Amino acid sequence: MEIKVVKTDHLKPKPTGALGFGTYYADYMFVYDYDEDQGGWHDARIVPYGPMEMDPASMVLHYAQETFEGLKAYKAKDGRVLLFRPEMNARRFQNSNKRLSMPTLPEEDFVQAVNDLVKFQEDWIPTGEGESLYIRPFMYATEVAVGVHPARSYKFMIILSPVGAYYPEGVNPVKIYVEDEYVRATLGGTGFTKCGGNYAGSLAAQVKAEKLGYTQVLWLDGVHRQYVEEVGSMNVMFKINGKIITAPAGKTVLPGVTRDSIIHLLKDWGYEVEEKHLDIKDLMKAGEDGTLEEAWGTGTAAVISPIGELYFKGEKVQINNFKTGELTQKLYDTLTGIQWGVLPDKFHWTHEVK
Amino acid sequence: MEIKVVKTDHLKPKPTGALGFGTYYADYMFVYDYDEDQGGWHDARIVPYGPMEMDPASMVLHYAQETFEGLKAYKAKDGRVLLFRPEMNARRFQNSNKRLSMPTLPEEDFVQAVNDLVKFQEDWIPTGEGESLYIRPFMYATEVAVGVHPARSYKFMIILSPVGAYYPEGVNPVKIYVEDEYVRATLGGTGFTKCGGNYAGSLAAQVKAEKLGYTQVLWLDGVHRQYVEEVGSMNVMFKINGKIITAPAGKTVLPGVTRDSIIHLLKDWGYEVEEKHLDIKDLMKAGEDGTLEEAWGTGTAAVISPIGELYFKGEKVQINNFKTGELTQKLYDTLTGIQWGVLPDKFHWTHEVK
Ligand SMILES: Cc1ncc(COP(=O)(O)O)c(C=O)c1O
Ligand SMILES: Cc1ncc(COP(=O)(O)O)c(C=O)c1O
Repeated sequence: MEIKVVKTDHLKPKPTGALGFGTYYADYMFVYDYDEDQGGWHDARIVPYGPMEMDPASMVLHYAQETFEGLKAYKAKDGRVLLFRPEMNARRFQNSNKRLSMPTLPEEDFVQAVNDLVKFQEDWIPTGEGESLYIRPFMYATEVAVGVHPARSYKFMIILSPVGAYYPEGVNPVKIYVEDEYVRATLGGTGFTKCGGNYAGSLAAQVKAEKLGYTQVLWLDGVHRQYVEEVGSMNVMFKINGKIITAPAGKTVLPGVTRDSIIHLLKDWGYEVEEKHLDIKDLMKAGEDGTLEEAWGTGTAAVISPIGELYFKGEKVQINNFKTGELTQKLYDTLTGIQWGVLPDKFHWTHEVK
Repeated sequence: MEIKVVKTDHLKPKPTGALGFGTYYADYMFVYDYDEDQGGWHDARIVPYGPMEMDPASMVLHYAQETFEGLKAYKAKDGRVLLFRPEMNARRFQNSNKRLSMPTLPEEDFVQAVNDLVKFQEDWIPTGEGESLYIRPFMYATEVAVGVHPARSYKFMIILSPVGAYYPEGVNPVKIYVEDEYVRATLGGTGFTKCGGNYAGSLAAQVKAEKLGYTQVLWLDGVHRQYVEEVGSMNVMFKINGKIITAPAGKTVLPGVTRDSIIHLLKDWGYEVEEKHLDIKDLMKAGEDGTLEEAWGTGTAAVISPIGELYFKGEKVQINNFKTGELTQKLYDTLTGIQWGVLPDKFHWTHEVK
């Protein structure tokens, strides 16, 4: 893939102070067009960040044929720029796009586009404690038509946003509301993809949980509303009687890059990890009798998010006295250590941007 | 709601020949902005149809917070311009928006916007046999942010497209593939809404059915994959032993305006209509033993679409020898008659545009 660069003289000042999440965007973005009648992908380019022209009948605005990815670039102390397993995002993106009847992008083109844009915008990677450059690749249908069919044209884009530490005051446990009314995903649906529709449909539950004083929602499966699936936009893991349990990914559950990496670390440390459908009643029972030792969510944004309390149908359980568990903390320290190039990378997960 | 009009001198030539569906768009569109920090809805306007500026981090492109409606304007022989039960679309739109954590629009504002835009673009209503002006109201999140939360700003728009007769050669039966792998909707999800995500997720099944030589997909429920729900983007009805059966709407099934109108007509004609979960096995059995007398889909686009064949897991049944049933045809003639102002409107369904 040949990438053209269109330069601008109008560079933005770099943000100072707290970065937040998704508040600032870098000077440039990557754009790649797909047209069925032009033989597919064409005109890969890095161009100044800015608004596109959007016809009101563009299919993305009506039928949500859109998918995205999320990963980060880290600036190591020695000056290297690191990505974390970008090829996994590339492959998951392909799986999302296939399910949504959208064209796929070769894995190497995805990684190259991310690599080259980050390289070009290296000065946008913040270097404060816990800061990183959030990378948002996304694809959407651009065909102008109001009939329901797979679009014949698409845009693949990447935008960059410098983001702050997810927990500026250190990792802290959150309270989780087990959702028993709304469903995020079901067998035969799009749960394993990062398609826009999954997120739009999940907002109502999130709003409800927040109103009740909870940070996130724990999703149950769509068929029985009984088995634990994910927590908000994170995968979720439980340490029960010394063993780690997490839901199987790939059907209704998003196969998280963090999830997979944590499983590798745990197994490497000798833990037994079981990928199984955990009954919410068994989970609450383990919470009550104290065999539920630790619980945490995993995802690119927060890396590891300890869970201190679960609420389900009128019952509450506290986990580890609402304190971050020892293993939870060790996982956080280890994974962020690898991501920022501080700890040895024995699994060859980091991709150095060149 | 006060609607400003911004005029243009650049009017497009009206299309000649076959119109198709969603090929042409009228000269003007309606736009209404919502901003949480400006007190909600503001600046209702009719402006020339054309592209908007879209920031690449606009939330609609990432999290599909978007909903739409679909209805038609008909030009009666006596020159009146008629809408068909637009208040039902207004209310369904509110229900969609609530489920997607989006702001709602007062029913009267929705109807006024549709009415006024159609009035303003009256010369875009085609007058050929079976032709009408398709009206597409839609709303989407415009906030620039990549965090997952309900957006704080939205656009509500209406675009118009002159469309041809859905069946230029008259109503004809279609072949339907009963989908047993992909799921459109599940309890606790968004099935009862017209949100973009429902349609993006449904494309894969549609593509598969077409490859196998079928026109549309029949959806089964997401929990048991056993009960009949909808056909493509239509509600579906079966005449079995003289009685009409259709799936209950409002949870996993879209409450179609056509569906509701057909139920009224049927009851008025003395038919028994049962809204129940029909087991696909019972349906196939009824197809085999001949008690399945007629079957049809209902929706704004085609009004009534007769079903001539069902395929389910290796088995096929033909319905009414692949001919349009008597009742199916009568429903089509009656409803289109009312919509075009040819038949008396005893239910007061038509709204005259003024
Ligand atoms: C629904 C959902 N589950 C899990 C995850 C975690 O995936 P990853 O570890 O790749 O960020 C995400 C994304 O961040 C998500 O959106
Ligand atoms: C999924 C689905 N079901 C049913 C219908 C029929 O609804 P209506 O009769 O209001 O057009 C539609 C829309 O046209 C639809 O998209």
